[in-house]
Amino acid sequence: MTQTDVEPNTALVEANALRILAMDAVEAANSGHPGMPMGMADIAEALWRHHLRHNPRNPDWPDRDRFVLSNGHGSMLLYALLHLSGYDLPLEELQNFRQWHSRTPGHPERGYTPGVETTTGPLGQGLANAVGMALAERLLANEFNVGEHEVVNHHTYVFLGDGCLMEGLSHEACSLAGTWGLHKLICFYDDNGISIDGHVEPWFSHDVPGVFRAYGWNVIETVDGHNQQAILAAIEAAKGQAEKPTLICCQTVIGQGAPNKSGTHDVHGAPLGKAEVQAVREALGWPHAPFVIPSHVRAAWNAQPQGEALEREWQARFDRFASAHPERAQEFRRRLAGGVPDGWDEVERALFAQALEVQESVATRKASQLCLEQLVPALPELIGGSADLSPSNLTRVRASVPVMPHGDALSGNYVQYGVREFGMMAIMNGLATHGGFLPYGGTFLIFSDYARNAIRMAALMRLKVLYVLTHDSIGVGEDGPTHQPVEHAAALRLIPNLNVWRPADQFETATAWTQAVRANGPSALLLSRQNLPQLQRDTAASLEAHRGGYVLQEASGAQPQLVLIATGSEVHLAVQGAAQLEAEGVPTRVVSMPSTTVFDLQDEAYRSGVLPRGVPRVAVEAAHVDGWWKYVGLDGEVVGLSTFGESAPAPRLYREFGVTVEHIVRAGQRVTARAERGEAYAQ
Amino acid sequence: MTQTDVEPNTALVEANALRILAMDAVEAANSGHPGMPMGMADIAEALWRHHLRHNPRNPDWPDRDRFVLSNGHGSMLLYALLHLSGYDLPLEELQNFRQWHSRTPGHPERGYTPGVETTTGPLGQGLANAVGMALAERLLANEFNVGEHEVVNHHTYVFLGDGCLMEGLSHEACSLAGTWGLHKLICFYDDNGISIDGHVEPWFSHDVPGVFRAYGWNVIETVDGHNQQAILAAIEAAKGQAEKPTLICCQTVIGQGAPNKSGTHDVHGAPLGKAEVQAVREALGWPHAPFVIPSHVRAAWNAQPQGEALEREWQARFDRFASAHPERAQEFRRRLAGGVPDGWDEVERALFAQALEVQESVATRKASQLCLEQLVPALPELIGGSADLSPSNLTRVRASVPVMPHGDALSGNYVQYGVREFGMMAIMNGLATHGGFLPYGGTFLIFSDYARNAIRMAALMRLKVLYVLTHDSIGVGEDGPTHQPVEHAAALRLIPNLNVWRPADQFETATAWTQAVRANGPSALLLSRQNLPQLQRDTAASLEAHRGGYVLQEASGAQPQLVLIATGSEVHLAVQGAAQLEAEGVPTRVVSMPSTTVFDLQDEAYRSGVLPRGVPRVAVEAAHVDGWWKYVGLDGEVVGLSTFGESAPAPRLYREFGVTVEHIVRAGQRVTARAERGEAYAQ
Repeated sequence: MTQTDVEPNTALVEANALRILAMDAVEAANSGHPGMPMGMADIAEALWRHHLRHNPRNPDWPDRDRFVLSNGHGSMLLYALLHLSGYDLPLEELQNFRQWHSRTPGHPERGYTPGVETTTGPLGQGLANAVGMALAERLLANEFNVGEHEVVNHHTYVFLGDGCLMEGLSHEACSLAGTWGLHKLICFYDDNGISIDGHVEPWFSHDVPGVFRAYGWNVIETVDGHNQQAILAAIEAAKGQAEKPTLICCQTVIGQGAPNKSGTHDVHGAPLGKAEVQAVREALGWPHAPFVIPSHVRAAWNAQPQGEALEREWQARFDRFASAHPERAQEFRRRLAGGVPDGWDEVERALFAQALEVQESVATRKASQLCLEQLVPALPELIGGSADLSPSNLTRVRASVPVMPHGDALSGNYVQYGVREFGMMAIMNGLATHGGFLPYGGTFLIFSDYARNAIRMAALMRLKVLYVLTHDSIGVGEDGPTHQPVEHAAALRLIPNLNVWRPADQFETATAWTQAVRANGPSALLLSRQNLPQLQRDTAASLEAHRGGYVLQEASGAQPQLVLIATGSEVHLAVQGAAQLEAEGVPTRVVSMPSTTVFDLQDEAYRSGVLPRGVPRVAVEAAHVDGWWKYVGLDGEVVGLSTFGESAPAPRLYREFGVTVEHIVRAGQRVTARAERGEAYAQ
Repeated sequence: MTQTDVEPNTALVEANALRILAMDAVEAANSGHPGMPMGMADIAEALWRHHLRHNPRNPDWPDRDRFVLSNGHGSMLLYALLHLSGYDLPLEELQNFRQWHSRTPGHPERGYTPGVETTTGPLGQGLANAVGMALAERLLANEFNVGEHEVVNHHTYVFLGDGCLMEGLSHEACSLAGTWGLHKLICFYDDNGISIDGHVEPWFSHDVPGVFRAYGWNVIETVDGHNQQAILAAIEAAKGQAEKPTLICCQTVIGQGAPNKSGTHDVHGAPLGKAEVQAVREALGWPHAPFVIPSHVRAAWNAQPQGEALEREWQARFDRFASAHPERAQEFRRRLAGGVPDGWDEVERALFAQALEVQESVATRKASQLCLEQLVPALPELIGGSADLSPSNLTRVRASVPVMPHGDALSGNYVQYGVREFGMMAIMNGLATHGGFLPYGGTFLIFSDYARNAIRMAALMRLKVLYVLTHDSIGVGEDGPTHQPVEHAAALRLIPNLNVWRPADQFETATAWTQAVRANGPSALLLSRQNLPQLQRDTAASLEAHRGGYVLQEASGAQPQLVLIATGSEVHLAVQGAAQLEAEGVPTRVVSMPSTTVFDLQDEAYRSGVLPRGVPRVAVEAAHVDGWWKYVGLDGEVVGLSTFGESAPAPRLYREFGVTVEHIVRAGQRVTARAERGEAYAQ
């Protein structure tokens, strides 16, 4: 079916109100994307006015339907919907579209705008987030819908475009959605045949319905996306599904309503221009001035009364549930609010007590598993998983139960994501945005590359998710440079709001886990494949790992002449190096820096207490050196790599790449000698 | 069909030789993956002994079939094949599997081992590389098979596993392969039902043949992967295809031949152990000691005579072509060898002459397009493209012809990759490894995240590919933080061997393009959305952009008291800041640093000439500050960001985030004042 077969039917004034607001806001901003809002306006009207269960007065109602605009560039459609439905998004915000600190940024941003469930724009991710939300709903329903009580029962709706379906992420997320049978996930594909480079046939010709059927989805094909009755019928059919997620393929005209520009990519990402805006007004019979919506249209859109009724009805159900199962109800509230359970301090104390008892060398990935053995039973919101590396990441523990469909229900607390790193992390974002869950997921640190933008989105939204990234250096050994992260620790530390931990032993791993659980945002734990010795901790300062960087071992004498800074698997090398340097008469402090990102957040007094001014510094990390000049300066040195690794046993690699006690000692000697000679700018 | 339905048929001693070598090498290394080589040995025997057209004595024969092991962890299968076929890979190398500087690293690495076409291991990428190789073959065939002459005519074969098909990258690459009708691409899917987490049904249940048919592929289902006749028949059928790429779904048992461990994930990634190794020898009736291959088996495998005959036959064809079309033949040789054409210096000179004539402000993305307008006609190996952002990346020029199927042929020099960043960059790697092409591809800098590991693989292989990454800062403006790179410049600079350029004007953009064309490895061009003024270049030093960093504008007086370092869109701000500081009596040098990575490769004398020791420094870049401490030290300052951006017009964002002339001047005042007071460690 080609563009011209679509029978325009834009009779509904309510849909046209969306078109007009989107068009006017883009025009006022002189920036934005009118094509998608105008093309999907009729679908939006059908869904939002006739099916979506939400309460504009309380965007946090736990059992609201979730709506995700995966083609986030069409943000004005969502803002128009929220505004007209009665969310706290006044007209001035629409008039301020895309301006500094407006609640209407260029792409929808969670936290900026009431009713925006997740930040979208990077294509494919909204769809994958929605899979996470739909998974969260099924798991919570299984956990809290006790007996006749039904406190969790909502749909997740997604708008998406060609771009989302070209992205490989859609393949990862939708294959899992089919496998899990997420039948309350309903997606609307805006099949308008246009992407930025033009008509998509030469680069997007595959049979989308065929692919989705092969994923195990219910596919409703060739729905006229401008015919309200056809759309409503498709939604009804989708809601009738009890086994499969649904893709509704809506044939639309991009920029529908723009008499001269619709159906072309010109309408995708630029204002229509004065003449075409006027032509739209005429074509749609819309005589009102920009941003003016007649009161009868406003009344038709106002979803506040119905929304409040819906939530009241749910609240009554919830109250009955709470009477019958007060503890479950209390737990439900806690889970949705996101705080730790009562008695959490006890759990943490036990974790540290256990950590300090460990004597033998353990890999920090194993140390992490030891923490998880205690955390998973204590924290039911933890939902773990791995991108097919459970036995390597050591993310699965005794209390882990794989997430599996059981007839109509889904249960479990451990997601086997398969070899889908990006899918995993984007689904984790959806679990977190839904509420009720604290997701953690594992892969090799090297493959954080595959998922990097999902990590970034978690950081942008400050979602609490935890990445277990093992095999964190050339310590990987024989698997070679394709599997040895070199630049990844430094690259992750560059992502704003992301807490990056590279612990050195059991104690620091327990610190990283407990801090990550309490953090206001995502955390990445970089963990060793190889065994590491437990460090001696015999001073109060040596227990300050939670501050990100701390004095693990003080120099002899009054003042250090040298500070060695190290992380993770290299801290014990620094300790050995310090012993040699001390023996040579160089008072040497060892700073363990499990988290540069957390250390950077400490106040200046603490930071300069740990890294005193004027004392030369050497940093040690079996990774790219370039992140460390920030801490050692032009006068310092870094023991690390700036090349790719090699395939060989790990001890050989440490020797060949010079990450050894000997090199630490020599670097320490050089920087102290230069400092004595008063030389600056050694670089 | 489940595991138990597979009828074991491992009668062929030639296949068993592969199993034994793989098993023995993994055992000797005490590290590696025996499961896949043992499972795919029969398929490998059928393909390599009966179909693959290659010459072990000349791995660079241009018209050889390409073979890609996308499930690269099974590297020992490939090493065994290369060794037995007669490549320069002696037995000692197999005995040295996974050891320091052996030619048998843990995963296959291009450049280490003759016959390894591309480095694999990160799943999905080998498959996508192969799509690029198959595309290269079709395009070269169209270009050079003149009249009756056929100098390009080979297949591309791929081994791949479940992991490759779970990865979203497979979706991107295989959708395009179907759209392009790459019928000489033949893939063998090792359908063994096992991945690292166990039996795959709970996380990989989608209908793989259905998905591939929907991509437009020819799918041959349920081939017994241990039955030589069945495999040979499937290959014949696939080679008979004239329109579609083929997926042969081979049902196999992982670790086939291991009587106790086959069919389980235990055999995937660990040595079999002494007892099981012995049991395999007994089960396969293989009485020989480790690494001993009987001479009749060696003889059966030796592909040297046939390979030389094949190449001779081709050479005769090529000679006839060369007689008839000497210039085309010469061009073919040049294209495959990879050098620039005769008279290239002239093209470069014209480019710089044009660059120095440009007076008006232009965005560097536009400056890049101006370069491409000259480069594309002059350099026929250039094959461009964009991930559906051609009008934004400005990668398409007048001489660009979209790659399209025309009946049996594919032609064009511009690939419309669709919204598939990872697919694009992995396909570019395949185009480059094939030979004959210099690929460039565009997307927004922010979406380099989606493709980051493909960039890394290009860098690891030192492939000459060019990334046109536009919209390179908060200068993006209204699209907001999801589209504004902050950490990306710094993160890309961390990838070893990657040349990262962020040019400031037309001249530096021409420098970046010409350097990238001549580089020994990949280059990323970070380009502005917004217009930038042309910088004044009135000294010889101000033309030294090719050295990565250079003195654009010298301080007044004998010695600078301050060095301002800036890149790209911030250089003109530094120039303005320097003027103010000079007016205040601070002799200020402006260093433009379009490529820190190239600057770092200059000798120490040059570097300290540009950045003199002891002179305080301020760096300016509208991006994350943390990459810059390397150049300014603890005493310096960086004018930049360490948070995400916001949605607003770009000039407002520069003001709000403090990337302004005023902030540069203040930072310059502070660092010079501190230097005068002799303060160190200001941080």
